[in-house]
Amino acid sequence: MDTTDQTLERDEGEIDLSGDDLGTELKLALEMEDDQAMLGSLSDLHPADFADQLEELTSEERVELISRAPQLISGDLLAELKDEVVEDILPLLPASQIANALTLIDNDDATQIVEEMEDAQREDVMEALEPTERAALEASLAFDDETIGRLMQREFVAAPRFWTVGDTIDHMRTTGEELPDLFFNIYVIDADFKPLGYVPVSKLMRLPRKVMLESVIEDLIVTIDQDVDQEEAAYYFEKYHLISAPVVDKDGRMVGMMTVDDILHIIQDENKEDILALAGVNDAGLTDTAFKTVKSRAPWLFVNLLTAVLASIVIAQFDYAISQIVALAVLMPIVASMGGNAGTQALTVAVRALTERDLTSRTAWRAVRREALAALIIGIIFAVVLSLIAFVWFGNPELALVAFIAMIINHLFAGIAGVSVPLALKHYGADPAVASSVFVTTVTDIVGFFAFLGFAAMMLL
Amino acid sequence: MDTTDQTLERDEGEIDLSGDDLGTELKLALEMEDDQAMLGSLSDLHPADFADQLEELTSEERVELISRAPQLISGDLLAELKDEVVEDILPLLPASQIANALTLIDNDDATQIVEEMEDAQREDVMEALEPTERAALEASLAFDDETIGRLMQREFVAAPRFWTVGDTIDHMRTTGEELPDLFFNIYVIDADFKPLGYVPVSKLMRLPRKVMLESVIEDLIVTIDQDVDQEEAAYYFEKYHLISAPVVDKDGRMVGMMTVDDILHIIQDENKEDILALAGVNDAGLTDTAFKTVKSRAPWLFVNLLTAVLASIVIAQFDYAISQIVALAVLMPIVASMGGNAGTQALTVAVRALTERDLTSRTAWRAVRREALAALIIGIIFAVVLSLIAFVWFGNPELALVAFIAMIINHLFAGIAGVSVPLALKHYGADPAVASSVFVTTVTDIVGFFAFLGFAAMMLL
Repeated sequence: MDTTDQTLERDEGEIDLSGDDLGTELKLALEMEDDQAMLGSLSDLHPADFADQLEELTSEERVELISRAPQLISGDLLAELKDEVVEDILPLLPASQIANALTLIDNDDATQIVEEMEDAQREDVMEALEPTERAALEASLAFDDETIGRLMQREFVAAPRFWTVGDTIDHMRTTGEELPDLFFNIYVIDADFKPLGYVPVSKLMRLPRKVMLESVIEDLIVTIDQDVDQEEAAYYFEKYHLISAPVVDKDGRMVGMMTVDDILHIIQDENKEDILALAGVNDAGLTDTAFKTVKSRAPWLFVNLLTAVLASIVIAQFDYAISQIVALAVLMPIVASMGGNAGTQALTVAVRALTERDLTSRTAWRAVRREALAALIIGIIFAVVLSLIAFVWFGNPELALVAFIAMIINHLFAGIAGVSVPLALKHYGADPAVASSVFVTTVTDIVGFFAFLGFAAMMLL
Repeated sequence: MDTTDQTLERDEGEIDLSGDDLGTELKLALEMEDDQAMLGSLSDLHPADFADQLEELTSEERVELISRAPQLISGDLLAELKDEVVEDILPLLPASQIANALTLIDNDDATQIVEEMEDAQREDVMEALEPTERAALEASLAFDDETIGRLMQREFVAAPRFWTVGDTIDHMRTTGEELPDLFFNIYVIDADFKPLGYVPVSKLMRLPRKVMLESVIEDLIVTIDQDVDQEEAAYYFEKYHLISAPVVDKDGRMVGMMTVDDILHIIQDENKEDILALAGVNDAGLTDTAFKTVKSRAPWLFVNLLTAVLASIVIAQFDYAISQIVALAVLMPIVASMGGNAGTQALTVAVRALTERDLTSRTAWRAVRREALAALIIGIIFAVVLSLIAFVWFGNPELALVAFIAMIINHLFAGIAGVSVPLALKHYGADPAVASSVFVTTVTDIVGFFAFLGFAAMMLL
């Protein structure tokens, strides 16, 4: 496989809107009448590339491919595919083939595949597995989704403290098969299997064989509890630049390890979750069907409808003022929209700061004060601009003054709500990314309309 | 240092809004009159934890700490601190101390610190460095910001193809000092220093000394060009689960390597950039001063003001209709707001799919069609609800019909704009996260007001 020049040749994610470019290796292969030729043309693909192409096929094309060449579906491939696609493919495969595929990959990858199975198939596959493999999978599945116990790798390399470098290397040479595919640290454990420290493989290799592990051991920076949430673990990996970390059970015994390449995926998942939650989208992807899309978006749109109706009720209180001065109806959306945007800016910065733990109990008050000050400055700037627009447009200095005051008030509320709503949600144990937007824009809509129309009713009528 | 139980004990990012909890180790240490005692109490901290606490101090407190104990500022600490804080601290330190600190850390970390210096200080520090260190730093700084040439580590382990496992291990034992702190792969190179493949350290260690490297070499999945953008490199690390990858110059010669722990930070930076860009915030953090906050948010608020005025001009065209039927002014923000939210949902999913390269030229049309269908369904659902509300509220079946039609039209535009705007921006080489929101909400505001008020003027007057 010569893919060494991959990055050099590829053009950066170029989008061709013509949609003609459907000639992927896989599509071409599918069109071949000869199954052998088809297999040949696919055998060079890296599982991750094969997975990308398989994801782009329609469901029908995937069924055809798999019925012609079920052996293409390896454990490595399943581990690369998106959950929806795995769910789609699994029912097409015999239990024995899946069991076989699972045996050839690491335990953490296998767990994720088993998660996607229907109960009946899962039982069949579990039965077809070797008892030790089955036990490891069952142990992982007993943990909650998104906990480290579910996600960790149960294969790791540990050595007792009294071993020498030579003992350790000899041990690894003899037990080749059961070791993880790749590892970076040897964990040093005590008689109770509690981790005492670690020796990086790159360090071990440079040491004389007679050196005692105990004398070159490095301190563990963190030990992860198996019940901990994935986000928590990811935070420590990022903060301390960890490559791998030991996972322990409630008695402190080492039961597995997490490695940074899995953390990368967790971080991407968490970021995706946050970015979608801020936009009011429940768990969703672009490959969802239209029906799934509706299901993932309608709930927050419904909440938004309720808050929009609330804002309309505020407007309805001032129907007399609007019927007298239609300019109010023209300008009021500007005040609300500016407040909504300013609030969204503040809340996004706050949500991100909470994720990165820059915003903590120690810095919360400072942050609220700073936001309020910034909002005041921004409010004054745009109050000046809007009142000028209002004056030039409608020639009414009093209307301009109303716009001026309402703009400042709404920006102040927007800034303060933007930072305090996520803080409050976090304080009460909710995910600050999920409902913040709706709360904040409700505040800015209601305050915006009320301030603008209220002052107008007082000053202009 | 006993921090083994760290995760087990810590409560997950609990926020205490009382703001009393200011007793960090660092604050306490600062209050000690005795500098020795202060140093003692801080010496146990991991650089990442020390950095966290230093970031929470005010500028004045930091100045006091550093004037009392400049030796606390190590290279490892500087590498952990946020850019703003590094910028703040560097002028307080003598060039010789900084040069010394840089020598003790890896080249990639040193580059990031030098980036934050004023020109005059940078010259002094460069002069105080050893010639080889200086040359490596100058080579990195010659590359653009956010390219791999700037970010990579110039220390790596390479071995010629004709070496044996024993040769390689002996080489590493003798050249201890110049090797990177940690490494996971030995790169096998040809006579021109071009990378041919790699051998994982965990594999090398298990092999007999006599084995030729050439016979156990593993294929490189990607080789990163030094001019490539960091985002591109991060994508390949994630896709292929890489732990490290070789970086080559334009002639294909190996000049450095990237490791996954640095990629983790790149991914977090890129995610932060996206999430803030979607909310219309330029590069910003929560620790910014109020003035910086205004600067980072005002530009997009100004653009939003212009588009809000555009929408108001649309409303102004229907001032007669509004003066006749004030209910129009009451209901029109609901139509606009629902469209705006639906558009934001669609665009966020699309931007995320572009980042993850699920949305490509091959899948673009399918995605647009799917969005349009989903938008139609969502539009019909909420059109029914809104027209019911309008009918019950105002008792006017024609007004309810206007709301029904306007809602469907606006949702359709929202869905299609939500996916096509980011696609178009990407197609023309712009960052789809940056300007999408403003474009999409402009579309939904204008279409929302125009459809609702336009049909109302036609049907109700």
